[in-house]
Amino acid sequence: MTHDAFEAWTRETLGRVEQGLTTWVRLEAPAGLGEVMRYGVLDGGKRLRPLLVMAAAEAVGAAASEAALRAACAVELIHAYSLIHDDMPCMDNDVLRRGKPTVHVRYGQAMAMLAGDAMQALAFEVLTPAEGEMPAALQARLVGLLARAAGEEGMAGGQAIDLSSVGQPLDEVQLADMHRRKTGALLQTSVKMGAACGAPSPAAWAALSDFGAALGVAFQVVDDILDATQASATLGKTAGKDADANKPTFVTVLGLEVARTRARDLHARAHAALARSGLPQTERLGLLADRVLDRTS
Amino acid sequence: MTHDAFEAWTRETLGRVEQGLTTWVRLEAPAGLGEVMRYGVLDGGKRLRPLLVMAAAEAVGAAASEAALRAACAVELIHAYSLIHDDMPCMDNDVLRRGKPTVHVRYGQAMAMLAGDAMQALAFEVLTPAEGEMPAALQARLVGLLARAAGEEGMAGGQAIDLSSVGQPLDEVQLADMHRRKTGALLQTSVKMGAACGAPSPAAWAALSDFGAALGVAFQVVDDILDATQASATLGKTAGKDADANKPTFVTVLGLEVARTRARDLHARAHAALARSGLPQTERLGLLADRVLDRTS
Repeated sequence: MTHDAFEAWTRETLGRVEQGLTTWVRLEAPAGLGEVMRYGVLDGGKRLRPLLVMAAAEAVGAAASEAALRAACAVELIHAYSLIHDDMPCMDNDVLRRGKPTVHVRYGQAMAMLAGDAMQALAFEVLTPAEGEMPAALQARLVGLLARAAGEEGMAGGQAIDLSSVGQPLDEVQLADMHRRKTGALLQTSVKMGAACGAPSPAAWAALSDFGAALGVAFQVVDDILDATQASATLGKTAGKDADANKPTFVTVLGLEVARTRARDLHARAHAALARSGLPQTERLGLLADRVLDRTS
Repeated sequence: MTHDAFEAWTRETLGRVEQGLTTWVRLEAPAGLGEVMRYGVLDGGKRLRPLLVMAAAEAVGAAASEAALRAACAVELIHAYSLIHDDMPCMDNDVLRRGKPTVHVRYGQAMAMLAGDAMQALAFEVLTPAEGEMPAALQARLVGLLARAAGEEGMAGGQAIDLSSVGQPLDEVQLADMHRRKTGALLQTSVKMGAACGAPSPAAWAALSDFGAALGVAFQVVDDILDATQASATLGKTAGKDADANKPTFVTVLGLEVARTRARDLHARAHAALARSGLPQTERLGLLADRVLDRTS
């Protein structure tokens, strides 16, 4: 696949996701809540998770399904809500996100918390349409995957470890466990949700799951490297926050060079998993993994 | 049914719910998150919502189903998470709940926000067991009902109206709309979720839904009456907060006597709906409605 073809697929897919989010995050939500939710989720971010859902759905021949688009939007709603809550003063106290003031800076803390709460609920609404072409069994499956990735076994649990780790010496295993939950679970689940829209063999499912796991950790290692080496203007968010907050990162635990090697190893593992899947159309998943390693912001 | 028989049913049902919550809110959640979640949901509250789920399930002959118990626990998790977030300083800034320090007072704001977030996710996990006897179509149905009651069309939307209404003159219609979303949606949905565990006729479904709607508004009217007339010690939470915060309530909008009349009218409407349902076993739903009207805390 040429670079141009991949870029064209990315643009077209993100257009569909943006359209889905614009439909489902209703501006008409009461008392300005719709505006706040839209501020938090529309028109921003790299949309890595929805792209993973759609690329995984393509790998299993389900890219055109309504379920895949709903899964892509649901996972982005969970991601976006988590950023809103993370940025609040009682958590990371960040004022800049995607180059814009964070939601609580723009709309106040109460509306930010509420918008995040409503977005989590909305993710599960999007996965359970009362009408349309989405089988109930698939609805239940996707809800189960997403809820477990978002909750204490996944993202929220990872954030709790993160909170309690400030100033604590974590070793690489503990750090990897934290990030497997905090960031990795939702990335891996994006791949699984896309795959669940088709009917992969158990072997293909296991391989895609391993691809998602490797990509999930690689993403965080690269994030920590960028946080340690890039300026805020490039990142579109406040750089160096984790080191400043005395939080352990892959860079502080491993050192910069070992962290870079770790990222490359995980990248190779992700590609090996794709090769092992036996699925014919995994090229875009591979290119997304390349993009995770090569990104500069 | 005698008072004693109803009390025995209540105790037995709440025992099952407590057991379910103790199983599903895992103490092993990372970094103390399980302890915080348990503090927020176990051993507290009147459990009106789970009782409504179970009584509605009984009305449709599904009280013994695993689905009804899961629905009861899921709805209580949503309710409990909303209390944790509501109590935080950026919202109502309450320090006392169910006679105990609120979650953020006990564990800090960051853990309180995270625990609430994880409890919302957990509600949807509980509704989507990978194994067991719960049909996938019912899982999807219950998730759809609960997500809509929790999100912008329901609870979160009502809270947004509540936030923006401080110091604003609302008329009774606007106030009722706010509470229909903020409190009523989850109470009504409790009844619907219980009913969905069986196979009621469309007419019975509509009657139970109307019962839930009337009960939902009655609950809030009584809550406002109690807030205006009872001491904190009786309520187990800080009394008079809404009036102090210059928030409109049914008492400030209607006056105390009209509010009391309104509660009685809604109570009569709830009983009329039960009679109209044609279902044989609605007695416990009726007794729960009586309890809502007669409660003193």
